[in-house]
Amino acid sequence: MISTRPTIPADRFRERMTAARDLAAEAGFAAILVGTGADMRYLAGYPASSLERLTMLVIPTAGDWALVTPRLEATPARLCPPAAAGTLPVVAWEEGDDAHGLVGRVVRDANGGSVTAGRIAVSDDLPARHLLRLQERLAGARFELASPILGRLRIVKDADEIALLTEAARAADRVVAQIASGRLVGRTEADVAREVNERLVAEGHDHAEFAIVGSGPNSASPHHGASDRVIRVGEPIVLDIGGTIGGYGSDITRTLWVTGGDPANAPDERFRHLFGVLQGAQAAATRAIRPGVAPDAVDAAARRPIEAEGYGDAFFHRTGHGIGLEGHEDPYIIVGNMEPLREGMAFSVEPGIYLIGEYGARIEDIVVCGPDGPIALNEAPRDLYLVDG
Amino acid sequence: MISTRPTIPADRFRERMTAARDLAAEAGFAAILVGTGADMRYLAGYPASSLERLTMLVIPTAGDWALVTPRLEATPARLCPPAAAGTLPVVAWEEGDDAHGLVGRVVRDANGGSVTAGRIAVSDDLPARHLLRLQERLAGARFELASPILGRLRIVKDADEIALLTEAARAADRVVAQIASGRLVGRTEADVAREVNERLVAEGHDHAEFAIVGSGPNSASPHHGASDRVIRVGEPIVLDIGGTIGGYGSDITRTLWVTGGDPANAPDERFRHLFGVLQGAQAAATRAIRPGVAPDAVDAAARRPIEAEGYGDAFFHRTGHGIGLEGHEDPYIIVGNMEPLREGMAFSVEPGIYLIGEYGARIEDIVVCGPDGPIALNEAPRDLYLVDG
Repeated sequence: MISTRPTIPADRFRERMTAARDLAAEAGFAAILVGTGADMRYLAGYPASSLERLTMLVIPTAGDWALVTPRLEATPARLCPPAAAGTLPVVAWEEGDDAHGLVGRVVRDANGGSVTAGRIAVSDDLPARHLLRLQERLAGARFELASPILGRLRIVKDADEIALLTEAARAADRVVAQIASGRLVGRTEADVAREVNERLVAEGHDHAEFAIVGSGPNSASPHHGASDRVIRVGEPIVLDIGGTIGGYGSDITRTLWVTGGDPANAPDERFRHLFGVLQGAQAAATRAIRPGVAPDAVDAAARRPIEAEGYGDAFFHRTGHGIGLEGHEDPYIIVGNMEPLREGMAFSVEPGIYLIGEYGARIEDIVVCGPDGPIALNEAPRDLYLVDG
Repeated sequence: MISTRPTIPADRFRERMTAARDLAAEAGFAAILVGTGADMRYLAGYPASSLERLTMLVIPTAGDWALVTPRLEATPARLCPPAAAGTLPVVAWEEGDDAHGLVGRVVRDANGGSVTAGRIAVSDDLPARHLLRLQERLAGARFELASPILGRLRIVKDADEIALLTEAARAADRVVAQIASGRLVGRTEADVAREVNERLVAEGHDHAEFAIVGSGPNSASPHHGASDRVIRVGEPIVLDIGGTIGGYGSDITRTLWVTGGDPANAPDERFRHLFGVLQGAQAAATRAIRPGVAPDAVDAAARRPIEAEGYGDAFFHRTGHGIGLEGHEDPYIIVGNMEPLREGMAFSVEPGIYLIGEYGARIEDIVVCGPDGPIALNEAPRDLYLVDG
């Protein structure tokens, strides 16, 4: 298969690193220290492994940036787009070296030898094993999270990023259709989850990331996972699945009801009503999306119809989360988030209604805030899927 | 398929938490704070998702432990073995609550209201987003890594853990045999890696974790990954793959040479010699393993024959790493590690010889330190695999 996958051009990474450095300087930081993960992938296009050895993108505000890497990963490090283009020097350390001390030196050298009383921003997912050592090597500096800076950049997606999110969403749509048209009765949730993972990859994802298969009472547990429970007729399944393409995630939820082909096993009246309320809430929240609207208002738009029908307590999570190089990132669609939506923000809209111990339902799309309103990346029908198999 | 998988009995988790608390008290800590990841899975049997919401196992040395969880994950949290057995209370926090403040209160309450000047141990992989907030909420306390405590427990595997590691190793062995007997010529490394991932799951892994497929010159890059390079005849492939079963990892490396069935494409004399030296080194390091021997000596046993043949500079990583609930953990088989091996330690033995720009080779087994010597969990032949396909 020839890949027609959208890619991020190499120049973009230099632009992003420059923007991050400018924002950090403006905010009074001496440096940004970025460990492996989404921030590093965003800034340097480097999907480094997250093992115990320190890999760190060091961006001093008053000097040259560098990618610090263990020697045995120097080859892939030098292949990341800005390193390959000659705009990001790679500094390799040897087994047994004090890698954290090396980072400390790079930061101090760029700041005239000292950062005492300086402020250092670190990527939010930097593990304690590195952070505590850096706090020792840069004693006196104040460490803060880098998300107020990097989040401002990452929260708005450019056209290439939206193209990747769209490709991922369409691939996940196809997997939902395949699962809903296949056999489910008599299989364990875990077995269905395995099939989901295989299909996510078969449909073009680089990695399958998660597959929640919540059947019967498990459908009322939002972050259930997939257990050894056997799926039976006459019960719902909440199917919440996702993977990544080029680092960018898919995340879709649809609710199925297993009839086994027998109308006697059709959803009961209460579930049909609950689902109708949910469908209306998901559509209302989506319709509320446009530049300038606060996530708080989108959350309220989902919550209002659910509360009006007396299910308020049964919708006990936020309405959505941003998505990009991380499965959950800014903007969060949650009460109290008043930062207005901007064109290019991408996030989930996923209200749910859960009657603990009985059953539940959720509908989730990934939606981009377009110039005039919502652009839903998922196109799978948002109805209750009646499953024969 | 009926699973015959070994499981960890529920009582074991209470014993582990008790042992961790006793060691922490002895070392003078006020509490251990364990985020999601291998430490939490080890202590509480809870494979919690690692999203942005705080999930934390709080073990004060002077009070009762608790599992702090976001409400929407309360159901799976209550299903982890010690919670289900009633020996681990679950404390759920609501969207919008100050979860870090809640953890701070639990710790302070157990310590009579204050931990100022106290010492707090945190799990090594706790992300900065949680650690920096906890440092604020428990201002005045000194934060240190929990690995000196938890590592002492996790470094020796019990019989159930070894059974899981063995099952994972055998599953990975089967995948190596399948890949080596299939078609490789004309396919990209990435395509072979996809097949590896599918087969790891098909052979019983819960998750495929990694697949390094380093062909031709890429075989000389130890942490290469898998690229769009097309595999050709007359070149080696370093195949380094692994997944997890019940949380415990497999990790095997074998080196293949692609002949395409034509003796004219057989490995050259230099590669054969290099591989023979490597094979001897891997066997010598394995033979050196027994209780009381330092990892430093195992590393030296691998390095000595390689250096004797002039390849010392071409073996530029440590000889191995521990394996269990993490792919890389203690004990590290590296120069300078003088902590003697003990019965039940499990780790890789994986020397490599890399001629940068040309080609390289690596052989890796997972080995358990038995009462009288090494027990290799992998049984796949350690020879150079000549591949026809």
